[in-house]
Amino acid sequence: MSNRLLGAVEAGGTKMACAVAREPDKILEETRFPTSEPEGTFAQVDAFFTQAEAKHGRVDALGYGTFGPAGVNPAESTYGQILKTPKDGWEGVDVLGFLREKFPKTKLAFDTDVNAAALGEGRYGAAQGLQDFIYITVGTGIGGGVVIDGKPLHAQPHAEIGHMRVPLLEGELDDFPGSCQFHGRCLEGLASGTAIGARWGIPATELPKDHPAWDLEAGYLAAMVQNLVACFAPQKIILGGGVMNQKFLLGKVKARYLAEMAGYWSGHEDLLVLPELGNQAGITGALIMASSA
Amino acid sequence: MSNRLLGAVEAGGTKMACAVAREPDKILEETRFPTSEPEGTFAQVDAFFTQAEAKHGRVDALGYGTFGPAGVNPAESTYGQILKTPKDGWEGVDVLGFLREKFPKTKLAFDTDVNAAALGEGRYGAAQGLQDFIYITVGTGIGGGVVIDGKPLHAQPHAEIGHMRVPLLEGELDDFPGSCQFHGRCLEGLASGTAIGARWGIPATELPKDHPAWDLEAGYLAAMVQNLVACFAPQKIILGGGVMNQKFLLGKVKARYLAEMAGYWSGHEDLLVLPELGNQAGITGALIMASSA
Repeated sequence: MSNRLLGAVEAGGTKMACAVAREPDKILEETRFPTSEPEGTFAQVDAFFTQAEAKHGRVDALGYGTFGPAGVNPAESTYGQILKTPKDGWEGVDVLGFLREKFPKTKLAFDTDVNAAALGEGRYGAAQGLQDFIYITVGTGIGGGVVIDGKPLHAQPHAEIGHMRVPLLEGELDDFPGSCQFHGRCLEGLASGTAIGARWGIPATELPKDHPAWDLEAGYLAAMVQNLVACFAPQKIILGGGVMNQKFLLGKVKARYLAEMAGYWSGHEDLLVLPELGNQAGITGALIMASSA
Repeated sequence: MSNRLLGAVEAGGTKMACAVAREPDKILEETRFPTSEPEGTFAQVDAFFTQAEAKHGRVDALGYGTFGPAGVNPAESTYGQILKTPKDGWEGVDVLGFLREKFPKTKLAFDTDVNAAALGEGRYGAAQGLQDFIYITVGTGIGGGVVIDGKPLHAQPHAEIGHMRVPLLEGELDDFPGSCQFHGRCLEGLASGTAIGARWGIPATELPKDHPAWDLEAGYLAAMVQNLVACFAPQKIILGGGVMNQKFLLGKVKARYLAEMAGYWSGHEDLLVLPELGNQAGITGALIMASSA
């Protein structure tokens, strides 16, 4: 379309991605590195764009998708900042302030990483052509990006999803105290990758397919799905994040959700899907944010 | 503003209201009667507007707020219809078809009763000046109207809220099987007026203030509030409906929510409020719908 140079940062809880592109789906250059403390992280972001601008020219518009919670509502005083987070050193960090200093002439867009991922999947992936859908990441934490009428939901400041309450699966004797430092056994405290590791003493990636962990996990994610449907009535729910890389898990969540929902909502056989863009959803979405900034 | 005659119907699960007005907050004439089967109910609606039009002239625009679930998405084939409901005779009823026949020249707006109530409270009541808020009714069932960016949420087809999952309050030995015919112990099955009556064998309106029912009720509604905040991050949640007429209950829900949320979200001391329009919220909102039809 245009010849503008788009920049994007996906700031995930554990991994960063930076990219430049002329179109959101045609990345010219990209780098990935672990998320560390703010100063070191920003230095690496700075270094990537300094060399990219030397090669491709000035970045005209940049989208930044951050781990949450973050101030994404331009009407609020916390706009552009990281809010209450257990991530060391990040609470209160003024991300937009850093970007404005680094890119004084660049149009900036700021949103959550999961809203960015939702936009990516909406334009190029599993939710193409849809108006109402949700992107969920089940990883270190649990987060969600909600798209309503084609636009990411921003309120006070944004949907978080992870800290909802779900029934304990007591029939399965779940006496795990939960890993959420605020709520113990909220959804994130029961079903995030962190919770799985703490509960079983084995990282989720190393648990065999027939481990009882997976039925329990499917039960909690099915309750989350029912709550998302009760609240948002979406066309699709995309289940992404590291824990969902165990591909057999999607089928278990589907079966459990359909059983528990008990025919109340119809046509939900294909409600749940995996992301189609894999780990490119977030950075692609941040480029889409830049392109409409 | 204009001299147009506005008509409105609030079709609640147990009570109907019909009104005509020149402005949404200045009702000229209003009637209320119990909701019965569709034919008898529509005959009474018909009779009210026939006499009202004889007196005030033709209704130029009419808003209809119905109990849910209902097809409120104009893009769907079920638009204007009542969907899966336990209410005798109402499933599949084509409300909009009836209205088009009765009012062939009138502009029609169709939404849920709780979206209508939310609009009413947003213009004249507890959510004036707000963009993101939720109206909840805790009555025979539990339902919710969600306003995002000043507009009622419509998706596939709309938020229902009532059928979300919440943790069983097991410390309080809750072995009640739940009253929801689909899910047993979903929120509606645990905390609606119907559930309270079935659990204790006494209608909610007759339970004394010091009955243990109220702490249990507050616990379930607090979990609902946490889930609504995790999903929508609203500015206010208005708790209405017959069960909330026990005015002391609001304080119990607030205290329980603040304790369970454990300081994770700040500034939530005034998040929960009672409706300000009482039982006029729905009919007022339906008149607002008419005025913008």
